Amino acid sequence: GDWIPDDREGLTICDATSGIFAMDIDCSKLDVITWSWQKVLGAEAAHGMIALSPRAVERLETHIPSWPIPKLFRLANKKKIIKGIFEGGTINTPSMICVEDVLDALNWVESIGGTKELVKISNENLKIVEDWVSKSDWIKFMCEDKNIRSSTSITLLIKDEWFTKFNEDEQRGVLKKLFSILDKEGVAKDINGYPKAPPSIRIWGGSTVQNNDMKALLPWIDWAYHSVKNNA
Amino acid sequence: GDWIPDDREGLTICDATSGIFAMDIDCSKLDVITWSWQKVLGAEAAHGMIALSPRAVERLETHIPSWPIPKLFRLANKKKIIKGIFEGGTINTPSMICVEDVLDALNWVESIGGTKELVKISNENLKIVEDWVSKSDWIKFMCEDKNIRSSTSITLLIKDEWFTKFNEDEQRGVLKKLFSILDKEGVAKDINGYPKAPPSIRIWGGSTVQNNDMKALLPWIDWAYHSVKNNA
Repeated sequence: GDWIPDDREGLTICDATSGIFAMDIDCSKLDVITWSWQKVLGAEAAHGMIALSPRAVERLETHIPSWPIPKLFRLANKKKIIKGIFEGGTINTPSMICVEDVLDALNWVESIGGTKELVKISNENLKIVEDWVSKSDWIKFMCEDKNIRSSTSITLLIKDEWFTKFNEDEQRGVLKKLFSILDKEGVAKDINGYPKAPPSIRIWGGSTVQNNDMKALLPWIDWAYHSVKNNA
Repeated sequence: GDWIPDDREGLTICDATSGIFAMDIDCSKLDVITWSWQKVLGAEAAHGMIALSPRAVERLETHIPSWPIPKLFRLANKKKIIKGIFEGGTINTPSMICVEDVLDALNWVESIGGTKELVKISNENLKIVEDWVSKSDWIKFMCEDKNIRSSTSITLLIKDEWFTKFNEDEQRGVLKKLFSILDKEGVAKDINGYPKAPPSIRIWGGSTVQNNDMKALLPWIDWAYHSVKNNA
């Protein structure tokens, strides 16, 4: 977080959904952090988490937006932060089975050695993919800069000329076949790229994915790609 | 729904959270109905449901509010309803364990005879309480009009003069003792009135509460009230 000044006037808002617990985050530089239970923790979805810095709280208590805020998103009332929300009070009803599930996930995190271990697992997953990519003649990273590459949302492009000569629709067709083979073999589910991204492969490298499983996956992707190509 | 005209220009918006499936609803008179899984269905919380009439869809496709709508609440984009949301698409990730749970609840509803049976169970719960209240010398309904009384959120006031002579804080103190006795005996959890309501008792009469359990509860409340009163 070196590029964020300590004496900033604005608020830094960080959507840490897919990153938190799997990457080191310089929290002192963030004023608002949001995340979910279903990503790196591997728990149930539907519950958004938020952490606020004292400066974010101050903003909530001094600024009233000119538009109406839905009740579900109201963190302040009459220029006072609604403290109860941060002390177990609820505006809407959460799912208690999901709460139990995330507590279970947090216990699991402690049992394996805490956040440090989570970060280690995810970094190792990325390294395994990097080693594979560096030896591959058909695949490359979407994010070319190693320093800002995500260890959780690992996104890959096909550089093979046989593939790149196709138009986008044809490329998506090839990938569809590849994903379908891997799904049928019980190897990988939904490793498709983000819908709005270019045709790509996206592998979850979060800390619930064991390093050995990541190692086991990659030769399957090689095999599936060459199957599709050879049968085209 | 006789009081809502068929040729209305406005939209009728119904928060059916606690009522749906336990009461007959004249859906032809409603344009927007919202509800949750955790009430009458007894499933998990955190997922809001919405049903729209063709006229509500038309409004979504013609009216753009002058304020920003959070992504989570966006049902239309560029004057077009986002159809995918109503066909299994998601904006944010739902909890799949909660989805399974509500499917299980719906199977249960079918197995006992459908919504008709749910309505019957809840109506019978209210009737059981009404019979008890009609013979009681210390308790009465908050809603005096039988025709608009809820069969799910059954709310009661204490009419006993020993109680009514207290001020509100003292009344809440008496009720706290009563709830604590019932909790300790494993009879009832959290049958406290809505926080913003006057000091009151609120009994859930939804269709997951068996009629026999409702019958079993009421003498305990008599006993608890008189215990508190006699020990005061």
